[in-house]
Amino acid sequence: MNFRSAGRIAVLAGLLVLVAVWPAPAADREKLLTESGVYGTFATFQMDHDWWDLPGESRVISVAEVKGLVEQWSGKILVESYLLRGLSDHADLMFRVHARTLSDTQQFLSAFMGTRLGRHLTSGGLLHGVSKKPTYVAGFPESMKTELQVNGESGSRPYAIVIPIKKDAEWWALDQEARTALMQEHTQAALPYLKTVKRKLYHSTGLDDVDFITYFETERLEDFHNLVRALQQVKEFRHNRRFGHPTLLGTMSPLDEILEKFAQ
Amino acid sequence: MNFRSAGRIAVLAGLLVLVAVWPAPAADREKLLTESGVYGTFATFQMDHDWWDLPGESRVISVAEVKGLVEQWSGKILVESYLLRGLSDHADLMFRVHARTLSDTQQFLSAFMGTRLGRHLTSGGLLHGVSKKPTYVAGFPESMKTELQVNGESGSRPYAIVIPIKKDAEWWALDQEARTALMQEHTQAALPYLKTVKRKLYHSTGLDDVDFITYFETERLEDFHNLVRALQQVKEFRHNRRFGHPTLLGTMSPLDEILEKFAQ
Amino acid sequence: MNFRSAGRIAVLAGLLVLVAVWPAPAADREKLLTESGVYGTFATFQMDHDWWDLPGESRVISVAEVKGLVEQWSGKILVESYLLRGLSDHADLMFRVHARTLSDTQQFLSAFMGTRLGRHLTSGGLLHGVSKKPTYVAGFPESMKTELQVNGESGSRPYAIVIPIKKDAEWWALDQEARTALMQEHTQAALPYLKTVKRKLYHSTGLDDVDFITYFETERLEDFHNLVRALQQVKEFRHNRRFGHPTLLGTMSPLDEILEKFAQ
Amino acid sequence: MNFRSAGRIAVLAGLLVLVAVWPAPAADREKLLTESGVYGTFATFQMDHDWWDLPGESRVISVAEVKGLVEQWSGKILVESYLLRGLSDHADLMFRVHARTLSDTQQFLSAFMGTRLGRHLTSGGLLHGVSKKPTYVAGFPESMKTELQVNGESGSRPYAIVIPIKKDAEWWALDQEARTALMQEHTQAALPYLKTVKRKLYHSTGLDDVDFITYFETERLEDFHNLVRALQQVKEFRHNRRFGHPTLLGTMSPLDEILEKFAQ
Amino acid sequence: MNFRSAGRIAVLAGLLVLVAVWPAPAADREKLLTESGVYGTFATFQMDHDWWDLPGESRVISVAEVKGLVEQWSGKILVESYLLRGLSDHADLMFRVHARTLSDTQQFLSAFMGTRLGRHLTSGGLLHGVSKKPTYVAGFPESMKTELQVNGESGSRPYAIVIPIKKDAEWWALDQEARTALMQEHTQAALPYLKTVKRKLYHSTGLDDVDFITYFETERLEDFHNLVRALQQVKEFRHNRRFGHPTLLGTMSPLDEILEKFAQ
Repeated sequence: MNFRSAGRIAVLAGLLVLVAVWPAPAADREKLLTESGVYGTFATFQMDHDWWDLPGESRVISVAEVKGLVEQWSGKILVESYLLRGLSDHADLMFRVHARTLSDTQQFLSAFMGTRLGRHLTSGGLLHGVSKKPTYVAGFPESMKTELQVNGESGSRPYAIVIPIKKDAEWWALDQEARTALMQEHTQAALPYLKTVKRKLYHSTGLDDVDFITYFETERLEDFHNLVRALQQVKEFRHNRRFGHPTLLGTMSPLDEILEKFAQ
Repeated sequence: MNFRSAGRIAVLAGLLVLVAVWPAPAADREKLLTESGVYGTFATFQMDHDWWDLPGESRVISVAEVKGLVEQWSGKILVESYLLRGLSDHADLMFRVHARTLSDTQQFLSAFMGTRLGRHLTSGGLLHGVSKKPTYVAGFPESMKTELQVNGESGSRPYAIVIPIKKDAEWWALDQEARTALMQEHTQAALPYLKTVKRKLYHSTGLDDVDFITYFETERLEDFHNLVRALQQVKEFRHNRRFGHPTLLGTMSPLDEILEKFAQ
Repeated sequence: MNFRSAGRIAVLAGLLVLVAVWPAPAADREKLLTESGVYGTFATFQMDHDWWDLPGESRVISVAEVKGLVEQWSGKILVESYLLRGLSDHADLMFRVHARTLSDTQQFLSAFMGTRLGRHLTSGGLLHGVSKKPTYVAGFPESMKTELQVNGESGSRPYAIVIPIKKDAEWWALDQEARTALMQEHTQAALPYLKTVKRKLYHSTGLDDVDFITYFETERLEDFHNLVRALQQVKEFRHNRRFGHPTLLGTMSPLDEILEKFAQ
Repeated sequence: MNFRSAGRIAVLAGLLVLVAVWPAPAADREKLLTESGVYGTFATFQMDHDWWDLPGESRVISVAEVKGLVEQWSGKILVESYLLRGLSDHADLMFRVHARTLSDTQQFLSAFMGTRLGRHLTSGGLLHGVSKKPTYVAGFPESMKTELQVNGESGSRPYAIVIPIKKDAEWWALDQEARTALMQEHTQAALPYLKTVKRKLYHSTGLDDVDFITYFETERLEDFHNLVRALQQVKEFRHNRRFGHPTLLGTMSPLDEILEKFAQ
Repeated sequence: MNFRSAGRIAVLAGLLVLVAVWPAPAADREKLLTESGVYGTFATFQMDHDWWDLPGESRVISVAEVKGLVEQWSGKILVESYLLRGLSDHADLMFRVHARTLSDTQQFLSAFMGTRLGRHLTSGGLLHGVSKKPTYVAGFPESMKTELQVNGESGSRPYAIVIPIKKDAEWWALDQEARTALMQEHTQAALPYLKTVKRKLYHSTGLDDVDFITYFETERLEDFHNLVRALQQVKEFRHNRRFGHPTLLGTMSPLDEILEKFAQ
């Protein structure tokens, strides 16, 4: 491939301008992150070694192509990016994609994997889930419901952790009341960490090989560690047939910054 | 490889015309999809990175070769195609092949993997099953039999999901009556989803490492998710030693469209 | 590599003539397949993608080299070949090798992997077993012994299936009488399929990570499926810690035909 | 890539001088290794085969680049290096990195993997943990507390072993008193090895798929072997769902020496 | 790489002469194989496909380099070689290395993997153990002690089998007396095979992910098979959490002969 024409570079400059307005309007973003019935996809990728042998200009153009693609899809889906390299096994980059229709996510990811940069990535794994109204909160005591409404501290939360969970058959055989009691104990254990560890739950059953994806954001990693340890000590934990495997740990990072690392 | 001769392009144009009439007559298709004793094979493939480095013309010819092969086999087998890229791990493309003789399927797949395009694919896995008359329905109450005859809504069902299942030894040790009772509870839980989630069962024991392949089609993915969750809550679910692993999720897509993505 | 000399082609032609007489005399073959104390090895191979980039002539010579090797060993070992491509995961070709001395098998396979063609194959897995006199039949009732002597239908049996089996520790802790009773129930379930599904058992304990290799040949795949399902329903099945993984499914095919596919 | 300019070599010489003062001041090092709230990361790498085909000069410059990077980060993190090749599966090199902030470790490792040498490494796995004050010692008898203060013998401890551990759900369901009793028995079994086997514990829950990383250093490998065997014989051992997998065994070796092996 | 100079060939010839005296003096060899406190390492390797594309002369020189290396280390370690190709999965070559210090083994293997030939090998796995005085024999009856002293038949024992073993937590929780009783039953079952199957035990706990490595040599493979089957039928066998996985089966072969196969 040759990228010699000045015209091409001009197009590229145009793309970079477009990318500056990439993020979806704040209101839309908030809706996708809080409404139920929204699909969340976690996709990890690993960079192959050949990428680094490309001439610098090719890499810059390749990165611009990805930015253009994300911009193009920003009306339909929300793409957030994470740097996993150095923290997670066999993964350099993670996308969290939110969409109302999973086929939109597929079209975006499929197009992404077909970009010049995408062809240098190996897909490391995909997890899909759908957001739902809380299943058990209605059965919790009022005091707990109030505590659950405490807002997390604002500020940066650089670390993100994704833990897929699969329940055992016994769990699903319990009636709603029994599961609510167990989830109340689980929630009680989690309360002290509400302020510093943000959490979002996705329901996965049937969409992949797990039942839930739990997503965490925190600035205080040791709080997160203590939260998970607290959750291990309640009875509900015994019903987890799989917890992690993989545990994905990364830092939230704008796509631009991650891609620039890859374009250096 | 060089593809310079105009004559070759002419042959290619001819193939493209042939491909337009590819799908089997509707009656044959219906028979293969509904009769018992028909073998169903699910084969996934992943595209290697070298494909994209081929000159455009080579890719177009390669795609035409595949279309010609499918056309050639259309009298004996039924091939349906799915785009898995962006939804399933380590798989870009899936074929569902129906045939009365599994060696026909083998000959087709073997020839496919030997095409110019096939040589750029890595086979990701194969699952085989055979369709059979319902095993337990005869023992169900009449009212349930009637409900089971409700037709699914027509219309497009873009999502397809494949879930292989392996029962535990205890399940097979149960007598027919006990299994029928458990399957009746299972079927009861599935009834609310009959209209929006289409389902087909294949029996696999001995043909590969699972006992069943369950295949689903739906336009409403959340209904499918709720169906699987409902099935997890009945007693029969405890006898699943394996459920998924992999769960294959994709969208139904004419071979032409998928291949054209690969020929862009 | 260049294969330009006419002399070489002449040698090649000679090899092809030799290959025509390759199969061992029928009597020897029968002995190796029926006597006890004979080692059976199942070896699967996958073709790499580079093979197809070789010039046609190189591939023809490579195939002839393999045929010559098989011919050379035909006095000591019996090699049967199967096409697995399109039916089994990650395997294109399988050899079943019978020999009185396992080191002969090793020398043959080692030489095969060193041929020009062999260097384009990735070894997918090896299973070894030894044939023994029946362990439990002596304890069966006379009527069953008679039924077991029924000959299978002659005719082609195109499908071959290999299922490795590992028993649990409890099985080996049972005494001979208890195991005989369980195997009698097992054999009773298998009797209806004696005519259409041929079966051969190899004992593997210590030679690899399984206890038995069961090998099946059949023209009627659905009978085989029903046989395995019947065997799942007897008590002995609960003592299988591993059954399959992999299940190898293929079609019997003369080496010439398989290799010619690879030489097209 | 060409490395012809004498100027470049001069820069290189400068780097080598800097590297000579690389290790962090002893006081800082001690703090990072003994304080609580410090993150420890174990990262293994495997060298690809292409590295050895680079011209010698390129390799020397590549190694100097890594040394420069380690030097640059020495104010924030502590990097220790181990040769795993020849002792551990699929791993040539291991870093143990200590940092107060895990994102510093990420930035260092990410930069390392982006160096010329790093691009020839395949990341083999990452384990993260955080140091904490002892959990159970407060509940131990005074005599045991005294014994625990015995200093290990000084001198070289060339062997290092890393064993990740995951506890079962039952362990976490035990109350503090029960766990203390079990850990007292565990500690009692370990006492005879305090002098010759140095040990450090990291808490991992939530940060990866294990609960603990245990790190050992010893000159007397058979003592270490006997220590682990002694620990297998106490009741607490039954609560280990995973112990090792992988067990990483290597020898402590200055980065310079390891890299020089790779630059020969 | 070019190997044109006659001088180089001369050096090579010299190496070949040295190699002729390679094996350690018989007395040293005997000591390393019988004393306690000696480390045994089993290392398997697989040849890559590129090796065969090297010019013949390069391969000859590469092999000579390995022979020279083994010679150079012969004063400190004992290296025995086995051909695994054709008998074991994903392994062509195995070394059994005995050393009094495991870091010597590491240095040898590390240097071996850095040779020209080593760079064409993929390391398949490493198992380490240490020889110890028998643990249970002291508690056996005198008659059994006498039987254990029977010498194995001399003569060639071409087959070698390596079976790693991991005990369950329950085994280690048994007291010495209980374990001795179980090992006495185990030994009783093994006695009939003492003459034809030679056996050596290595203790691995902590050094890798198994507890023991059992190494067998025999000329009569069916005896070995029957021995393992007999051992499966005693109570001690129920405490094996892992037995094999992998089972390594090969034939003893002088390094020269194996390497010559690789240099053809």
